[in-house]
This record gives sequence, structure tokens and C-alpha cells, in this order.
Amino acid sequence: MEFDLIKSLLIRNTKSKIVLLVMDGLGGLPMEAGGLTELEAAEKPNMDALAGKSMLGLHQAIRTGITPGSGPAHLSLFGYDPVKFAVGRGVLSALGVDFDLQKSDVAARGNFCTVDADGLITDRRAGRIPTEVGERLCQLLNDKVRIPGVEVFLRPVKEYRFLLVIRGEGLSANIEETDPQTLGVKPLPATAIDPNSEKAAGIIREFVRQAQEILKNESPANMLLLRGIAQLPDWPSFPEVFGLKSVAIAMYPMYRGVAKLVGMDSPPAANSYEEEIDLLEKLWNDYDFFFVHIKKTDSYGEDGNFANKVHEIEKVDALLPRIMALDPSVLIITGDHSTPCAMKTHSWHPVPTLMYAKTCRPDGINSFGERACRQGGLGVRFPGFELMPLALAHAGRLEKFGA
Amino acid sequence: MEFDLIKSLLIRNTKSKIVLLVMDGLGGLPMEAGGLTELEAAEKPNMDALAGKSMLGLHQAIRTGITPGSGPAHLSLFGYDPVKFAVGRGVLSALGVDFDLQKSDVAARGNFCTVDADGLITDRRAGRIPTEVGERLCQLLNDKVRIPGVEVFLRPVKEYRFLLVIRGEGLSANIEETDPQTLGVKPLPATAIDPNSEKAAGIIREFVRQAQEILKNESPANMLLLRGIAQLPDWPSFPEVFGLKSVAIAMYPMYRGVAKLVGMDSPPAANSYEEEIDLLEKLWNDYDFFFVHIKKTDSYGEDGNFANKVHEIEKVDALLPRIMALDPSVLIITGDHSTPCAMKTHSWHPVPTLMYAKTCRPDGINSFGERACRQGGLGVRFPGFELMPLALAHAGRLEKFGA
Repeated sequence: MEFDLIKSLLIRNTKSKIVLLVMDGLGGLPMEAGGLTELEAAEKPNMDALAGKSMLGLHQAIRTGITPGSGPAHLSLFGYDPVKFAVGRGVLSALGVDFDLQKSDVAARGNFCTVDADGLITDRRAGRIPTEVGERLCQLLNDKVRIPGVEVFLRPVKEYRFLLVIRGEGLSANIEETDPQTLGVKPLPATAIDPNSEKAAGIIREFVRQAQEILKNESPANMLLLRGIAQLPDWPSFPEVFGLKSVAIAMYPMYRGVAKLVGMDSPPAANSYEEEIDLLEKLWNDYDFFFVHIKKTDSYGEDGNFANKVHEIEKVDALLPRIMALDPSVLIITGDHSTPCAMKTHSWHPVPTLMYAKTCRPDGINSFGERACRQGGLGVRFPGFELMPLALAHAGRLEKFGA
Repeated sequence: MEFDLIKSLLIRNTKSKIVLLVMDGLGGLPMEAGGLTELEAAEKPNMDALAGKSMLGLHQAIRTGITPGSGPAHLSLFGYDPVKFAVGRGVLSALGVDFDLQKSDVAARGNFCTVDADGLITDRRAGRIPTEVGERLCQLLNDKVRIPGVEVFLRPVKEYRFLLVIRGEGLSANIEETDPQTLGVKPLPATAIDPNSEKAAGIIREFVRQAQEILKNESPANMLLLRGIAQLPDWPSFPEVFGLKSVAIAMYPMYRGVAKLVGMDSPPAANSYEEEIDLLEKLWNDYDFFFVHIKKTDSYGEDGNFANKVHEIEKVDALLPRIMALDPSVLIITGDHSTPCAMKTHSWHPVPTLMYAKTCRPDGINSFGERACRQGGLGVRFPGFELMPLALAHAGRLEKFGA
């Protein structure tokens, strides 16, 4: 959807409220032929009752057949086509560890790796060292690397993965990765792809030189590789495009981070679903748009734990009356992508979606599930990034186009 | 769908197999109000049973309301948006008669026509001369036309229609058609639209001059008109874009030709549906992707022969167990377009589509037909060129997008 079109039609003098409730990895599959999906199996009387007054459908975040990562999937729900609004892995890494990335910072996703006596890579993941070792090595590099004129930050992510951030003036990040993605060769030099990125590329090369010296007696993690060297994107902000004072309510840094990336406020983490709804109630009068993120549906999907994924959905269902008591103008209940327990991973399957609004044309289907959503008025395989304009309309926030 | 996106996500180290079974002109209409379509009327227990384990939908090859020709319709099924990947009629003519077109050849679709004593066109189709006359005239021109530095090939197509190919160095085909598409005027001169095409335009004008001299005593076919002057397109190849070693199994040159156009292998024709399946079995271990083309559903549609079109579908159904015995990862059963017997011609109606895959979220609809497909999870009126990315996903051949 064209942002300029939306902005040109915005109505601002309204107090209507939009809630986007995302159960991460919501979409599923039956575990055996003829069975129910996780969402279909869940006892969720509140959602089923709401479905009868709502529109249903199945969205896909990116394109048909494409399995979304969490970052792009949320961008889509926020109205940003993730193919057009690409965000570097370095930036996503920073969001994931709650690093407060600044406009001119250059971020990269790093791997500790193993090289032999000739400097040739023998293991791109350094034997998948434990997280504690990764933490110690990041600390070592934080303590010892010194590059005049810039600050260098290392943050452990998990096991062999870390975040590198370079902070200084006049940095650009159009720089080749140093990870050759193969064994038996040396890491590549960080090479600038355009002249503006020469300065940052030189700094990264110097960082790598010092790091190799500092790590040389470590085993197996005696070297590092950098990928997805990137800066914060300069995108139109969500509050500006959609005319909504907006806030993210989430337990995990990654989701607050993606929301922050598009300009939403992002208060400190809640520690439970109940606390998330507490926060929603507390902030109700201060914002127009509320993104509420539920993580564990995805985690249990990744574990292949069908019963627990079902149970998480039921827990959210039990909290739904508190959300409805706030009387939202529009409530969207969906996932960012599917994470079927049967596959134990993110998948490309379209995601069940419910949109409740006072002005909606209800499908009259008293059930929220994959098969029910197939029959709904939102359609099957519609782009996730079309939800926001539709929500704006139902919130009475868009003028007529033309006379 | 963006080819670059797909290519960036390809997983290559998998042995999964994709079969695209195209029953040409599959989509139909009831012959009278309240009746069944051809596909609905067919007794096809194997397809109906497979439907219950599959996803259904109705695709359209080009755009809503647009009736596809066979070439563009197949390009769409191969994942190429036919509006973006336009192929000249001259090239399609060459494919249709199994002419081995080379990269620098210039091909045109020709009509024999009738002109009066002043050279003004009186019949653009020369009274629809019989095919044998067209064959004799092509032979005459092949024997007599001589243009220094280039080879000229004429091939009969059907009745008044023929193929012209000019072979030489440095030819480009951005050239105006000579057919004015009206009566009472002279044929237009072949005029280059850009400087690179001057050479070929000059050769075509010389060809037309010699042809008019050679044909002057013929009646009624004493002149010719050229349309769709074109060269082989320089497109990303199907095996490269989708990472699939690919083969076309078809009885007619046109369909092997379109497959060859996008870089599929194209072994000699099979002579029956049984031989097509024999070939499929024989090639099973050598390829990743198999396009199997069934022609006669379309032919009987064009004839308006409802009973025979139904019977062809039933013959294909009887062969389905042999395909399923190969255990394809993904099987798509669809048509390239609709050819309703009630209309006796190609039509714009969306085409019934079944996608079976082990990872699919089955619709649970135990019937394959136009009405059943309307309820399916693939959706109604979805672009035919989205089938390939979805098939890749279900074949485990696409990585996650972003983190």
C-alpha cells in the first residue's frame, strides 16, 4: 500500500483505538492427517465468540511461499512491505539484544570461528561454543580493542553469535561481509562498496586485525566473521504514516526493537501476559495504537510441543475479556507467521487473522481457526501489510479518496 | 514474484521432486443453467481422493478478465508473469512448428493474403487457402528467395499462416509489422523502430519484394503480411531462478517449445498419455521438476465436445496412481487456461488448481472441480505465477527470509 496515499487521507481528530494482538507463530498444521491445528484444537470461547462478530482471513507476511523471519514478519503487520523495507541482519541482531542503536552506528552480526595456522577457516561456528564462552570472548574484545576516534561494542547473542557495533562520525555501512560462507579459505577483508563507506570499512578491518591478535591463543574460537553490516534504516515512521501515537507491549527485546525501528514507543518489558494487559490498561488513554506481542506460541511451535502451544492460546483467550472491556475500535488477532508444531520451525503457511471492528461486515463464522479463516471476508493469502490501512478505515481514520 | 528474492533464498541440496501436470484448457462451464462443468462431471476417483489431502484454488494466468493464449498461459505456470515476460508472436510460431530458433534469428508470423492490381489488400487471409496450398507456397519461397549474407526459412503453420525466419549476423527485431490490419491499403513497409534493427528491416523489405514477385501469378495468395517480428527473449532461465533441473514431457511442439524457451530440457515427443507417464518414470531420478502436458482437454473444449473432454480428464485420472507411486514432494494438477465446451474457445475463467504436498494444510475438500476449488486455501483468482514459489516452499527448497 502506498504510504503517500494513506497519509493524504488521514483523519486526525479522533480518539479511536486500534489493538494489534500478535501471537507469535500462531499458524499451524494438523499433527496427523485429518487432525486439528493448534488454534483449532484450543478451547477459546472468547475468541470464537468474537470471531462471529468479526472478519476472518489468512494473511501472509511477505510473498506466497516465503517463510518470514520475525523481523520482516512484524514489519509486514506494521504495514511495511518487507521486500521493499529490507533491514540488515546487523540491525536485527542489535534489536534482539536490546542494544540502543544510534542513527550513525554501524552494526554487524558476528560469528566466532576457527582458523588454522595459515589463517584458513576450519569451522565457521567455532564448534558452537557455549554461550558463556561467547560472553567471555565479547568481554575480552570490549576490554582490549582500541580504535582511535570510534567506540566499539561487542554483545554476546547466543553460543558463537555476537553483535558488533561501531560508533563514530561519518560512518556508512555499504560494506562486503567478511564471512566467505565456505571452509578452507581466509576470511574476506571488509571492503567498501561505495566511497562513503571507506571510513567504516577501514575501521572494521582494523577491528578484525586487533581481534585476531587478541583471540589468537583461544581455542576453538580464535577468529571472527562478520555478516549483515548495516545501519538503522531511514524509513517513514509508523506514527507519521498512519497518524497514530503508538506503543509496543512485549516481553522480548526483538519485538520491542522492531516496533522502535518504525518509531513506536517501547516501554520496559512486561514479565507475563497479565502484566502486558496491565500495561495496555495503564497506557490506554495515552496512545491510539497498541501492539501487544505474545511470544510463547512460537517457542512451543519451535519445540514441536502441540499441547503447550494450544495452552498458550487458551491463556491468551482468558485475557481477551480484559482487552474487550477497554472497548477498542479495532482489534486484530493474528500471528506474524506460522510455526507449526509438526514442522518445529517457522513456515510459509498463511496465518489465521481476525479483525473485529464496530463497522465490520461480520462473516458470521463462530470459530477462529485455519479452516474457518479460509471462509472469511479478509480472504486467503492476503498481504499482511494490508491490515493496517483496513484497520485505519475501521477506526474512522481515513477520508474518502476523490469526490 | 521477484526472481531475485527467490534466487536469494534457494536451498539446493535437496532431492525433492515437483510435478506440474497441466491439462490444457481444463477450466469449463456448465452447458446449461444448473449443470456441471466438464471437470465436475468427470468420474475421477483418484483426483477427488487426492483433493482431500491437498490445497485447492482457482488461478488465472495473466490478469482478471484476460483470456490467455497458450504461450503466456504456460509461462505463468512456469512462474513468469506473462505481462512482464512478453514473447513475440513470431517466436511462438517457431515454437509451435518445432523450428529450432537460434539466439540471433529474427522470426515473424506470416499470413498469405490477396492484393488487387494496384497492390491494395482485398483479403488478409487469402480466402483461407487449404493447408496444402500454404505448404506449397512456403516451399516455393524457400526455393526461390535469395538474399546475400542471410538464410531465409519459411515453414507452413496452418491454412494461410506460416513462419518466416531470417538467420544472419547482427540482426535485431524491433521492426514494425507489415500487416496494416485493414483492407483497401497496401502492406506496410517493414520499418526499423531503432537503429540496431535497420539491417534486419532492410532484409525483410527485400524478402517481401522477392516474395511478391514470386507469388504474383498465384491466386488468391499473391502476397504476404508479417506480424510479431521478434527474437528469442533473453530471460532468466527457469532452472536457474528456481534451482530445479527441469524437463518438459509433452506431445505437441508448442508446449515443449515454451518449456525450452525458459531453459527446460525437452526430450522428443511422447505419442500418448501412457508414453508421457512412461517418460516421467524413466526420467524420475534425473530431474527435480517435471512439466507434463495433456493436450486433448483443450482440443475437445475448442470442439465443444463435452463428453470427450470429460473422457480425457477421466483418462488422466486413471494414470494418476502411477504419478503418485513415484512419491512426488509436490504435485500440481491444473490447466493453463479455461476452454469451456460451452464457448468452444479459450476463456478468461479462473482455472481449477490442486496442489498436493506432504507439508500442505489440507482443505479437506474431497472433490476437484470449479465449485470445490472456490472453497480452497489457494484462493480464487490468484496469479498462476505464484504456484512455483509455493511449490518450492512445499518442496523444502526455500530458506527463511530475514531473521
